Amino acid sequence: MREQTFLEAFSEELIPGRPVLIGCPLDATSTFRSGSAEGPRAIRLASESIESYSPFLDRDLVDFPFCDFGDLPSSGGAVDLYLERLRREVLRVVRQGALPLIIGGEHTVTLPAVRALRHFHPELVVLHVDAHSDLRERYEGSFVNHATVIRRVADLVGPQGLIQLGIRAGTREEYRWMRANSTLLQWEPGDEARLLRRIGPRPVYLTLDLDVLDPACLTGTGNPEAGGWFYEDMERLYRATDRMNLVAADVVELSPGLDPSGASSVTAAKIVRELLLILGNGDR
Amino acid sequence: MREQTFLEAFSEELIPGRPVLIGCPLDATSTFRSGSAEGPRAIRLASESIESYSPFLDRDLVDFPFCDFGDLPSSGGAVDLYLERLRREVLRVVRQGALPLIIGGEHTVTLPAVRALRHFHPELVVLHVDAHSDLRERYEGSFVNHATVIRRVADLVGPQGLIQLGIRAGTREEYRWMRANSTLLQWEPGDEARLLRRIGPRPVYLTLDLDVLDPACLTGTGNPEAGGWFYEDMERLYRATDRMNLVAADVVELSPGLDPSGASSVTAAKIVRELLLILGNGDR
Amino acid sequence: MREQTFLEAFSEELIPGRPVLIGCPLDATSTFRSGSAEGPRAIRLASESIESYSPFLDRDLVDFPFCDFGDLPSSGGAVDLYLERLRREVLRVVRQGALPLIIGGEHTVTLPAVRALRHFHPELVVLHVDAHSDLRERYEGSFVNHATVIRRVADLVGPQGLIQLGIRAGTREEYRWMRANSTLLQWEPGDEARLLRRIGPRPVYLTLDLDVLDPACLTGTGNPEAGGWFYEDMERLYRATDRMNLVAADVVELSPGLDPSGASSVTAAKIVRELLLILGNGDR
Amino acid sequence: MREQTFLEAFSEELIPGRPVLIGCPLDATSTFRSGSAEGPRAIRLASESIESYSPFLDRDLVDFPFCDFGDLPSSGGAVDLYLERLRREVLRVVRQGALPLIIGGEHTVTLPAVRALRHFHPELVVLHVDAHSDLRERYEGSFVNHATVIRRVADLVGPQGLIQLGIRAGTREEYRWMRANSTLLQWEPGDEARLLRRIGPRPVYLTLDLDVLDPACLTGTGNPEAGGWFYEDMERLYRATDRMNLVAADVVELSPGLDPSGASSVTAAKIVRELLLILGNGDR
Amino acid sequence: MREQTFLEAFSEELIPGRPVLIGCPLDATSTFRSGSAEGPRAIRLASESIESYSPFLDRDLVDFPFCDFGDLPSSGGAVDLYLERLRREVLRVVRQGALPLIIGGEHTVTLPAVRALRHFHPELVVLHVDAHSDLRERYEGSFVNHATVIRRVADLVGPQGLIQLGIRAGTREEYRWMRANSTLLQWEPGDEARLLRRIGPRPVYLTLDLDVLDPACLTGTGNPEAGGWFYEDMERLYRATDRMNLVAADVVELSPGLDPSGASSVTAAKIVRELLLILGNGDR
Amino acid sequence: MREQTFLEAFSEELIPGRPVLIGCPLDATSTFRSGSAEGPRAIRLASESIESYSPFLDRDLVDFPFCDFGDLPSSGGAVDLYLERLRREVLRVVRQGALPLIIGGEHTVTLPAVRALRHFHPELVVLHVDAHSDLRERYEGSFVNHATVIRRVADLVGPQGLIQLGIRAGTREEYRWMRANSTLLQWEPGDEARLLRRIGPRPVYLTLDLDVLDPACLTGTGNPEAGGWFYEDMERLYRATDRMNLVAADVVELSPGLDPSGASSVTAAKIVRELLLILGNGDR
Repeated sequence: MREQTFLEAFSEELIPGRPVLIGCPLDATSTFRSGSAEGPRAIRLASESIESYSPFLDRDLVDFPFCDFGDLPSSGGAVDLYLERLRREVLRVVRQGALPLIIGGEHTVTLPAVRALRHFHPELVVLHVDAHSDLRERYEGSFVNHATVIRRVADLVGPQGLIQLGIRAGTREEYRWMRANSTLLQWEPGDEARLLRRIGPRPVYLTLDLDVLDPACLTGTGNPEAGGWFYEDMERLYRATDRMNLVAADVVELSPGLDPSGASSVTAAKIVRELLLILGNGDR
Repeated sequence: MREQTFLEAFSEELIPGRPVLIGCPLDATSTFRSGSAEGPRAIRLASESIESYSPFLDRDLVDFPFCDFGDLPSSGGAVDLYLERLRREVLRVVRQGALPLIIGGEHTVTLPAVRALRHFHPELVVLHVDAHSDLRERYEGSFVNHATVIRRVADLVGPQGLIQLGIRAGTREEYRWMRANSTLLQWEPGDEARLLRRIGPRPVYLTLDLDVLDPACLTGTGNPEAGGWFYEDMERLYRATDRMNLVAADVVELSPGLDPSGASSVTAAKIVRELLLILGNGDR
Repeated sequence: MREQTFLEAFSEELIPGRPVLIGCPLDATSTFRSGSAEGPRAIRLASESIESYSPFLDRDLVDFPFCDFGDLPSSGGAVDLYLERLRREVLRVVRQGALPLIIGGEHTVTLPAVRALRHFHPELVVLHVDAHSDLRERYEGSFVNHATVIRRVADLVGPQGLIQLGIRAGTREEYRWMRANSTLLQWEPGDEARLLRRIGPRPVYLTLDLDVLDPACLTGTGNPEAGGWFYEDMERLYRATDRMNLVAADVVELSPGLDPSGASSVTAAKIVRELLLILGNGDR
Repeated sequence: MREQTFLEAFSEELIPGRPVLIGCPLDATSTFRSGSAEGPRAIRLASESIESYSPFLDRDLVDFPFCDFGDLPSSGGAVDLYLERLRREVLRVVRQGALPLIIGGEHTVTLPAVRALRHFHPELVVLHVDAHSDLRERYEGSFVNHATVIRRVADLVGPQGLIQLGIRAGTREEYRWMRANSTLLQWEPGDEARLLRRIGPRPVYLTLDLDVLDPACLTGTGNPEAGGWFYEDMERLYRATDRMNLVAADVVELSPGLDPSGASSVTAAKIVRELLLILGNGDR
Repeated sequence: MREQTFLEAFSEELIPGRPVLIGCPLDATSTFRSGSAEGPRAIRLASESIESYSPFLDRDLVDFPFCDFGDLPSSGGAVDLYLERLRREVLRVVRQGALPLIIGGEHTVTLPAVRALRHFHPELVVLHVDAHSDLRERYEGSFVNHATVIRRVADLVGPQGLIQLGIRAGTREEYRWMRANSTLLQWEPGDEARLLRRIGPRPVYLTLDLDVLDPACLTGTGNPEAGGWFYEDMERLYRATDRMNLVAADVVELSPGLDPSGASSVTAAKIVRELLLILGNGDR
Repeated sequence: MREQTFLEAFSEELIPGRPVLIGCPLDATSTFRSGSAEGPRAIRLASESIESYSPFLDRDLVDFPFCDFGDLPSSGGAVDLYLERLRREVLRVVRQGALPLIIGGEHTVTLPAVRALRHFHPELVVLHVDAHSDLRERYEGSFVNHATVIRRVADLVGPQGLIQLGIRAGTREEYRWMRANSTLLQWEPGDEARLLRRIGPRPVYLTLDLDVLDPACLTGTGNPEAGGWFYEDMERLYRATDRMNLVAADVVELSPGLDPSGASSVTAAKIVRELLLILGNGDR
């Protein structure tokens, strides 16, 4: 069966130096409410309702070719196998010079992606944008899941390779860890310069958990947390990442079934469009 | 069958010099998601849950009589016929000195309404408040539909007779047209004076596509677009239009079925109440 | 943008002698609740959850190639134009020996399809399966819409070329017409033979309004009518049409947004699969 | 504000000898899920989508005038006051020779209605059609509520004045009471004659809790109970009541918000239409 | 049956000096849309998805024991009886030194709670946070319901014992009353000091109608009113109440069924957690 | 946190010889639509709305004590670990003479349960009631998931230890396997005797995938398949299993989020109640 692609995807074949969209409909470790497996499909479908032109960036996807690989096929419940396959896929993509943009699915996909990227970019900084710190050492007897994924990432890149924005929920222990390691930055208007200074010329992996947005802006996510970002905070993030050496990104935790209006999926599609335009911008 | 009216509608008969509500349940040209045909009914039903008194304007509809005509009956799919009937209806209403407030339905209804108003007000300014520019020259082989309607309006009133607020989506061509013709104004706090100066004493037709509001504020619309207005931006619009020579208005693109909570319809009803109080305010 | 196809569609190019799926996302003349424009997309998406093998027919779509044309593009609200384009498309398809299966969208699409088919099959019988008679002479000032479409079809094929099943709602005048013309047959177990006798060897166009199913079986339709068919009545229809000279068909009036569970779309996809297997069965 | 009426309601003024529709949006004693207060409004709105002609009865409401009183206004939470006002209203209606058809709202409204009817018809039989027996002596410290209402009715008319159909849930005590008093009859095809014999020429009050229908047929009700009636069982009830001396009826417990498809409300509207045609049939 | 508790509730038995959660699933007097009876259950269920630690307050519920009484059982529709039972329950709780936090349910529960508190705190100030003034003298013939409850509270504590925040809807008469009695304060950043001065050392009862939040932030409430608070306004309220002598509180009017995403319930659970941490903070 | 139990659960401690409810909120291998992890919670919550007395069986749960263990805690995404923990839990339960009734969650849980039961009952027959055959040899590279689970069960108990009812979907290969092994029986009225003869005195494990019910009866499941059972077919199953040596059972694949009316959960709760009454019936 032929499946839908995102907006004006140029091809299904990888284009060196260009962004490549990889769908990861994984939703295996959620504990409160599931549904993120529908994310990639919903984002592609919602892309029908948005333009290829971004007034904010004044760029048009027709000038920034990218490819859409479709979804990494399910491994029938074998999560470890799935994550390993994703790691290899990202390795293959980066080896050919392309820039992966992963759309989830649950947050766990960040770990194999970072692992693959680190192979090429030992100085990689992970910019973690999320409502939740995801820093548990262990969760329900498992070391790799949506609640521990950023702690595992920190094991790889070190606390100094991790920067967090938007966090507003966690256990007391997670907050102690963030304070001890100074990973959590503020994101009020004006904080952009500090972020850019801290990162410098290092290559950046952006992991964007959509629940960083306030539930007002995006209700279709499994763990809504009041007091979050509005879309203008996201626009400040676009502007900042556009000035970084962004080499890969993921956009995770859309649960479209929780938002019957479909607006969450349209907003996620718009965010994906902006990130494709930022990743694909050769001037960087 | 007797149908419901909006709030304390004084009569179904036209009252000279007073606002008249005309429902237009047209939803024929939508391309992504339909549902706006339910708009007029949902707004009338939701009006049950709001008061006739507006604390913001400190006016009460009991002091500002208006009439509710009900809905312009469907033409069974013949869109041209429908638009022509609406044009005649608006002509008839304005000829008797009443002030039409159209509730949609899709945005296409603006064209026949402006055509009728222009007959009486050759200097008419159209104030277009929307997330989308709706300025395509042609869309899917047709010249008159929800994506071209404001371009057709500009054909009538000229670019100098068009002012746009809230636009944040369009094709590159539409943005070029807006820049070339300077139709798009900013709407930050403080921009009100500039808008009023630009309009001056000219008669104003306000066309309000509800998707100008951020999806956070109004999820029940077919083409949600993140990064939009919050209700306080709407309140600044009330204050500004209250100082204009407003002669007619429309409120379009509510798709109530997309918001199961019903809150979008209640917000639309509140906006209609405020516009009735502004249109009906004899001091203007 | 690449769009999804139905199940194992062999190609997008027409295959002579084989069924061809044509999506018609038209929803322009509905008067109570809209939403059928989403039908074709929802059916293709739901086809992901069903098998290509039908235990009931003991046939597998992998042995019965068909093509999926995608959707006839919108004409931006110009209904007449849309219907005329559909007529030409069906003409073109039939001229090449293919067997059209139209998925709606609203019921009005039946008229241009029958018009095109009559060109090749002057003896065409229209088998109309529906909860509503759709036999009004005129509806809200228009002659061609979802409430008059079968009357227009009868104008083409004559009452003797029309057979109706499942009807359980209509005006008194429509019931008088059906009684006068003996178009409405019963569909209890055992009625199959009478239907086959009445049709004989004549070529058959099947128009299936999904609301013939009881709202229990299919809630996602704009005009649900209690007291309808259960799926076993549909299975008896499969068995009967499999013995007819079926040359074309349509499946209309799915409004997926009205059924948040998605079950209606899955049922519609299953019905489309069975009809593809019946149309594609060379033994007929 | 003017509110909507049911179908072709002839007037808001009572017509002697004719049915009168009284809405009772009471929803005060529900314990699991509320929402039946929306019932009357949803039934009137859904009546837009059905015809005034009933093929099943071969009668048209245009020949059977009735009036629609609108809703008995809320008493702001004072349930006793509300029930007392309903009793007086029904008294007033019956005194003028009209035939009340109450649409709920919760089941408790049956008690004051029966109380009023008994005043004129000492031999009144109550025909109770429901999934639940509603026969508790007392429920959560209260004697009058949705779980005790039929026991209170039995206190008035005696067990011999009560006949129950469709019951499939209750406590062991309630089932013992039903067995001891032989109030529960079967309702398989063929059971109609026994019911008619048991009632004889006595005047009948029909109380129809919509949850007698299987949840497949009507999901919009607070206490769904699998294993219930299908619409054909309801048609057998129409045929039977059409041969009784039916003097009043109620249709209760529609919770439209629980069925986002709206099909439950359309089915309820169809049932109300059939009962209006049965009540209004002068040949009885 | 064992029912769920809120987060890490220490016990079901009252702990002197500690907060006690009392659920009041009352929803008897609503006039537009019901559903608040589901509130307490939805808040407890949603508490599964939040942490016991509040980063905003830097306190953890594991250090602030509280008890969860469960729900005050229904009185089967007898509202007066229910309110009286609540009054006695609150009396009993306060007599033992505990701090009640009531979760509704409809707003009417505030009256018996204030009545009980006044017994111990004659100087009680009621801090009323709401979108609606709830100050009608009488509503639909009744003196005690959701639309009059704060007027009845004012009868008890006097206008000088009432302070209102967030109000943006009411009748003209209610607005006159608020202006005459200066009960309505502004709540812009910086207004906190004025509020604290006005209250001084007096004991405070906080009644929080969740519809004070903008519908963007909380769609799951029966009477949404645009132009409301965002979560940061709530955080300023936490900070202010943390410096008051808060002795009891209620959180009312969550209608979880209106928000299918569940985000409203999660936000309500977060608010309840913060209020438990404020009530339970011994330093106050 | 204290969690809710099913109906009148006697204790959380195992009672020898009595049924024990074990929730398995596992939803890791679904490929079309997820959501079954919410199943156990939804069933317990819905049990509030049903009685402890079953009129069909004329038994009351108050006479048939059972215990509710709550849910087997998540293993944070490690599916193999989860299934192994379930196997040990079932072993422990059966060792003490109790009768496990597992509520899912996805169908995969059947495998470890059967594995544990086989330890005690080498002659175990598995009665598989489902719309789908679940007999794939392998699915998306994995051997143990919802699409292969019954094939794995057949590997354990042999084709002669497997009996299937209700199957109406599968691949051609699965159908060939069923025909070759004669595992699929018909389930029309009258087929009960044949089933009982085929099983004889052997101990029985019943695995009930709720999608065996027609989507009309239960919309809240991930893979609805038209043409299924109605509730009366389920009642015939109760009657038959009541005459078997039933030693354990599972009820899987409820996805409550897909049915916003909640009726699916109530029906599932009713089925669980009947199975508890059948398992707990000492006369067997």
